[in-house]
Amino acid sequence: MKPTLEIFSQGEEIVCGQIADTNAAWLSQQAVQLGFLVTRHTAVGDKLDDLVGLLKEIAERADCCLCTGGLGPTTDDLTAQAVAEAFGLPLVFDTVAFAQIQDFFTRRQRVMPDSNRKQALLPKGSQRLDNALGTAPGFSVQAGRCWFAFMPGVPSEMRHLFAERILPTLSTRFALTPDRLITLKTIGIGESAIQELLRPITLPEGVAIGYRASVGEVQIKLLFPHNYPEDLLNRFTDAIAAPLGDKVFAVDDSNTGHCSDLVGIIDALMGQRQLRLAVLETVSRGCLGSLCPTADWLLSSAYYQGVASGDTVCDGNETVQSLAADLIASGADCALVQAFTDNKENFAVRGQSTGINIYLLTPDASHLAQYRLSGPSGHKQQQAALLSLDVLRRYLQGCLA
Amino acid sequence: MKPTLEIFSQGEEIVCGQIADTNAAWLSQQAVQLGFLVTRHTAVGDKLDDLVGLLKEIAERADCCLCTGGLGPTTDDLTAQAVAEAFGLPLVFDTVAFAQIQDFFTRRQRVMPDSNRKQALLPKGSQRLDNALGTAPGFSVQAGRCWFAFMPGVPSEMRHLFAERILPTLSTRFALTPDRLITLKTIGIGESAIQELLRPITLPEGVAIGYRASVGEVQIKLLFPHNYPEDLLNRFTDAIAAPLGDKVFAVDDSNTGHCSDLVGIIDALMGQRQLRLAVLETVSRGCLGSLCPTADWLLSSAYYQGVASGDTVCDGNETVQSLAADLIASGADCALVQAFTDNKENFAVRGQSTGINIYLLTPDASHLAQYRLSGPSGHKQQQAALLSLDVLRRYLQGCLA
Repeated sequence: MKPTLEIFSQGEEIVCGQIADTNAAWLSQQAVQLGFLVTRHTAVGDKLDDLVGLLKEIAERADCCLCTGGLGPTTDDLTAQAVAEAFGLPLVFDTVAFAQIQDFFTRRQRVMPDSNRKQALLPKGSQRLDNALGTAPGFSVQAGRCWFAFMPGVPSEMRHLFAERILPTLSTRFALTPDRLITLKTIGIGESAIQELLRPITLPEGVAIGYRASVGEVQIKLLFPHNYPEDLLNRFTDAIAAPLGDKVFAVDDSNTGHCSDLVGIIDALMGQRQLRLAVLETVSRGCLGSLCPTADWLLSSAYYQGVASGDTVCDGNETVQSLAADLIASGADCALVQAFTDNKENFAVRGQSTGINIYLLTPDASHLAQYRLSGPSGHKQQQAALLSLDVLRRYLQGCLA
Repeated sequence: MKPTLEIFSQGEEIVCGQIADTNAAWLSQQAVQLGFLVTRHTAVGDKLDDLVGLLKEIAERADCCLCTGGLGPTTDDLTAQAVAEAFGLPLVFDTVAFAQIQDFFTRRQRVMPDSNRKQALLPKGSQRLDNALGTAPGFSVQAGRCWFAFMPGVPSEMRHLFAERILPTLSTRFALTPDRLITLKTIGIGESAIQELLRPITLPEGVAIGYRASVGEVQIKLLFPHNYPEDLLNRFTDAIAAPLGDKVFAVDDSNTGHCSDLVGIIDALMGQRQLRLAVLETVSRGCLGSLCPTADWLLSSAYYQGVASGDTVCDGNETVQSLAADLIASGADCALVQAFTDNKENFAVRGQSTGINIYLLTPDASHLAQYRLSGPSGHKQQQAALLSLDVLRRYLQGCLA
């Protein structure tokens, strides 16, 4: 039996919907990967009674609870007080925490406001979790059957505290048997087409399959039980990948924790080959360039109204080819040119699709890929950028004939 | 006293952190604007006992509950069954719902799978909420002190059902006295600088002020009680706006529901003036273009490596000015050119800032704006794009001398 875990968030900005609770999603992902059974998320605002009641409930119900928010210096930051009331642990002034808070301000050459003194008050018997990035220390406490860890709501501080102070404790406190998640990332093929291709494959006992689609990418998630035999895992992963061919651009493994993305893969390949790219972003309109904010290999990216659109391109792609040749002449090793093939006027229409040609000119050959884009204009733009990068990826990986 | 409202989400993908619960945030915003006191969000997965227990709790605790997810055709979609068990309302086959589901498939020339029959089973005595966008009808039911509305988890279907079926009911079922939210949107100034400028202003009794910062934008939120006198509201809003000058690019009012954004404002102004813009995106690298996917007025946007960076630009901006002149010569009415002024190598370094010059050449004059960018490279890029667009906005609104 996996230990159960709940996520608890404090903050009016979450309860009132000013921000989505991305901390809860991030912490849940970590917990699932560690081998917890995540059972519930709860968010409440700054009413002390709500907080106290909820903490008592969770202490009876879950084995572990990861909590964010409510550790700040202002009067609506009530988490420590709520813990004190819920579990009868009076607040105690922590001199080490106070010295850290003072030091935080000293290093920034600022005077510590009196209100920050409150952040050094921790429930009696709790363990302080030092926070190198902000003024609020976290703390952990065992209450009832549940081990609680309290973190600040600022995402960067929360992630820091989780990685540095909580993660090491979780693996010693709990007997965790994490499932293993293999994620196949695909581009250029839709979710239903993938399901159709995978239909003949029988799922082994105990293995689960799931799909997750976003703009320009569909992920296939294979969940294997803890200690599933390595050879069987590899054989089944290969069987899933085979019918998808070069649509699969990455296979991630939760055991390594590495998360691949298309731009990162191209970054590495372009670096190895020492190639430089020029792009005419007729359809993606700058989106390709903006996806690569620090890429040395991107020599230029440009959008010009009225270029490479519509009729001229349907006439044998001569315009596109000559535009690509111009880009190579400007000093690039490879050139990508996008062109509308039909229904350019549908680009801004949510329910209508638009045809696109993506032309890649390289030192050894030229390639043309054709797609249809759909969804709102921002999605079409992003699809065009990612599909163009993917043509380049397949060239670099030797997948283009 | 405002009626209390809770948000309840069903779905393993939320509890396991595969997606952030943006439905909960959106529904909370709507509820707050309508005049509810939102007290809690809860998300649970597909365990029937959890669902039943939670529904019973909420029925005792809240006046209204907006629920999403769990209405699909698969066995882990348990919401209707959980309502039936929690409140003793056996599931009844709804022939109208069934006809709608069949019709959904007929219109798409597909055969209805048997599993979808389940979606026509609704708790006895509940009111069906017709869903024009998907197969799952929603339903509403009164249980204990709480009026529950159940919607699909697909965001587009959820929003449709909320707007068409739930919103009209809420305003008749509940005595709502909504606060009025005035949002001043600023660009080119940080949150602490704003707070410093606003420090001398006294907040009137009953009015609350809040801040929300995102990349390139800081919002000032003024919350006025229901029926706050119009003249006093306007006077206070003006007092807040005055010291911020042309940093304020929009003032939104929850009474109208309109939500302004910088690109939309520029869209309208460029349309009125019939001007066309060319941009050299040295720093934003395509991000400006990608923010304007359907703008007719964007004649071109381009990024070239090595152009308008570093030393040449510090020498009196001659390079930047001549590049802008080239863009005008290419057929644009206005040209924006970005150049690094110093520390170009810091662009990719998260903790370091980079200087940027933004040069605008227009039919009547030329303008230079200088900023420092900070944060990760993607943020610097986005700031550069938004600040460039803002120079154009201020020119179009006559704010540039």
